[in-house]
Amino acid sequence: MIENTTICAISTATGSGGIAVIRISGNEAFAICDKIFRARTGKKTVKEQQAYTIQFGEIVEDNQVVDEVLLSVFKNPNSYTGEDTIEISCHGSVYIQQKILELLIKNGAELAKAGEFTQRAFFNGKLDLAQAEGVADLIASESRASHKLAMQQMKGGFSEKLNNLRDSLIHFVSLIELENDFAEEDVQFADRKQLNGIIDDVDVLITDLIKSFSYGNAIKNGVPVAIVGRPNAGKSTLLNTLLEDNRAIVSATPGTTRDTIEEILNINGIQFRFIDTAGLRKTSNEIEKIGVERALDKISNSSIYIYLFDINELSLKEVEEDLAELNNDIPRLIVANKTDLVNKETISVFKNIDCFYISAKKNDSVELIKEALFENINKNINISSVVVTNTRHYEALLKAQKSIQETKEGIKNEMPTDLIALDIRNAIYNIGEITGEISNDEVLGNIFSRFCIGK
Amino acid sequence: MIENTTICAISTATGSGGIAVIRISGNEAFAICDKIFRARTGKKTVKEQQAYTIQFGEIVEDNQVVDEVLLSVFKNPNSYTGEDTIEISCHGSVYIQQKILELLIKNGAELAKAGEFTQRAFFNGKLDLAQAEGVADLIASESRASHKLAMQQMKGGFSEKLNNLRDSLIHFVSLIELENDFAEEDVQFADRKQLNGIIDDVDVLITDLIKSFSYGNAIKNGVPVAIVGRPNAGKSTLLNTLLEDNRAIVSATPGTTRDTIEEILNINGIQFRFIDTAGLRKTSNEIEKIGVERALDKISNSSIYIYLFDINELSLKEVEEDLAELNNDIPRLIVANKTDLVNKETISVFKNIDCFYISAKKNDSVELIKEALFENINKNINISSVVVTNTRHYEALLKAQKSIQETKEGIKNEMPTDLIALDIRNAIYNIGEITGEISNDEVLGNIFSRFCIGK
Repeated sequence: MIENTTICAISTATGSGGIAVIRISGNEAFAICDKIFRARTGKKTVKEQQAYTIQFGEIVEDNQVVDEVLLSVFKNPNSYTGEDTIEISCHGSVYIQQKILELLIKNGAELAKAGEFTQRAFFNGKLDLAQAEGVADLIASESRASHKLAMQQMKGGFSEKLNNLRDSLIHFVSLIELENDFAEEDVQFADRKQLNGIIDDVDVLITDLIKSFSYGNAIKNGVPVAIVGRPNAGKSTLLNTLLEDNRAIVSATPGTTRDTIEEILNINGIQFRFIDTAGLRKTSNEIEKIGVERALDKISNSSIYIYLFDINELSLKEVEEDLAELNNDIPRLIVANKTDLVNKETISVFKNIDCFYISAKKNDSVELIKEALFENINKNINISSVVVTNTRHYEALLKAQKSIQETKEGIKNEMPTDLIALDIRNAIYNIGEITGEISNDEVLGNIFSRFCIGK
Repeated sequence: MIENTTICAISTATGSGGIAVIRISGNEAFAICDKIFRARTGKKTVKEQQAYTIQFGEIVEDNQVVDEVLLSVFKNPNSYTGEDTIEISCHGSVYIQQKILELLIKNGAELAKAGEFTQRAFFNGKLDLAQAEGVADLIASESRASHKLAMQQMKGGFSEKLNNLRDSLIHFVSLIELENDFAEEDVQFADRKQLNGIIDDVDVLITDLIKSFSYGNAIKNGVPVAIVGRPNAGKSTLLNTLLEDNRAIVSATPGTTRDTIEEILNINGIQFRFIDTAGLRKTSNEIEKIGVERALDKISNSSIYIYLFDINELSLKEVEEDLAELNNDIPRLIVANKTDLVNKETISVFKNIDCFYISAKKNDSVELIKEALFENINKNINISSVVVTNTRHYEALLKAQKSIQETKEGIKNEMPTDLIALDIRNAIYNIGEITGEISNDEVLGNIFSRFCIGK
């Protein structure tokens, strides 16, 4: 599995910058660099250079200086990949970056594939698969919350939780299989009550992890929030005020916003993806009908949605009708808009509905909506606990959950122990897939191709 | 001039990548980093860490890990800026880069202005002004030739040449001023013949440097090559064949290419900027007239131009008329096109004109034009000699040349030595401006603002 090639890549962002870093890893890293590097001070070869030190010098080709560089040396196994590794810090022109890469390749290195450095770190036992995926997520993270989840995963919090689960299951299956060995004697080493206790605990933990995915995934990709309401309720104005910008077209003609618009807003470090929708109106216009259907669809894909109404236009009955028609399983904020045009009596009409009173146009109380959105997500996700953010992990956990359910059924129905053991083995296998105890080339290929080149 | 602040910036290219490098320089660099860095191995504080070593650890905020990083330490005066410097190599997410920068600023660092690290290197005597400008050119260089010129300038080749010039002039002026001190005694310490010799040498050197600018500038920004000829001579087809691509619109209707098109082609490491022009034709159409004028204008701005004609359409007389009308000071290649449609007798008609015979459409002999272009520029510019690439330097040299001319006149006309000395002093001043012996805030501001942030 571990190849003996030496790989190289530009590890910093694409394009020209003050400096750029080129990384080389593998058995021949030092020997290859010695062919193109001439030390300035100390006159040391790369091979002689101590680990964790930096040397100033030149990259040369045919006695011509390509660049003045700093060269950092990391020695196997104390490097990111676990192999001999060098980082060349050069001037950040695209020409120089390409030239140095070309020289390395000419002297025996190979261009690294996406994620290949991290893949080697995985093969060399520097991190497990879930941690490696955390590295990719960390690099892609754009908000405080997604960064925090990725960091936790990279540092092994998630893996630890899974390993504990796995250990419980292995303990369980060993007891069951012991019975199996003495099957003819019909003994029960394992107290069924105790077994049930272990399997219930595991079930709760897995179910919690699976539940955390809807929030984990939302945080990773932005929490989807649909804004719905009748035409001219002020949905686009609210969106604009939330974004303090003018993305959606606002007009006084009802039904302007036919297509859905998505906008990103970061509230206290959590990214929300706002989805403006067409107005909810019984309509015979075919295009608008599609718009309304889409709006309802967007609600079902939201983590939370905002129902907005014009307090001057709708009666209490109409609002209640709307609310009864809309999805009640997904958390929602009910928002009365256009309070700048309203009198006190009208407000009192809605006193039995738990709603926010705002004027999107005047930016009055809109801040309260932001707070409510943040609180709603924040209370559902305690970031210090372990959260599943990765679809691959989610699917493996679903499979494990199914095996656990079958185990429970098996114990309840007093199934033969070897069949129960099989279900447990399946669950162990599924959990092992997440951390890479169990892996196959295709899965690994999929995972590491998500990385950028140079990491 | 040297400020006591500690500055920081992201030094790698903008955007997300595998890793990013943040640089901190100044008196407080170590102290500031110690506030946010927690060493993993060795447990050393940044202050205790040896120069030219790397330490693995974490950036922390409120006891939360922001990232796992590598920290490289450089100690004053052995760093790029000449100050205490730290480079933090972190994961390359935009969020992490910004977060670490934010933490550094929160703990007392200031965000570096464009080029401020190099400016400090200049103030601390690590490099002179021409070398600092070489650094900016190096980062911006996109071809082998421009990279080579920038590297030479950064490494001080140009500065050395200028310092030699300056030394000659200082020697000269000291002799002249000595006479001045003894003016009443009417002695001549300096042999006028010897003085003339020195000033002639200086004159030749400065003139060479000034001449090199037209090529140096061309190499830095791409060598401009106009392609001219009568309508339907095949100019756009030639351009397309040269570029092996389909940028210009090619049509059989004469006069299609009204506006000028620029395309870049790298030939053996030199960048050429090809400028396709409207056809050269006496025309009453106002728009086409402007096109023709522009074409002639483009010739005068070219380092070399290509005159292209359709060998099947034009008589020898017509070609000679065209050539007589076109600029004869600028090197040109005469190219007979559409040889795929011609018979031998027609070719022999043009035997007295030194021209290339090609078929742009069939890509026949077009390679010869590339070779000729390269040779023409290459013979005019020996890259191993010193070449002026910078407009600021060019202008300073023009001023110095003027002062040298006036000095010559002064000696010839036996002007008072104090006036002659004044002219020499001017020349010394102008040359000193290039390397930064003489500088002012405005000039420095202009120079360093050209840099990217983080260098």
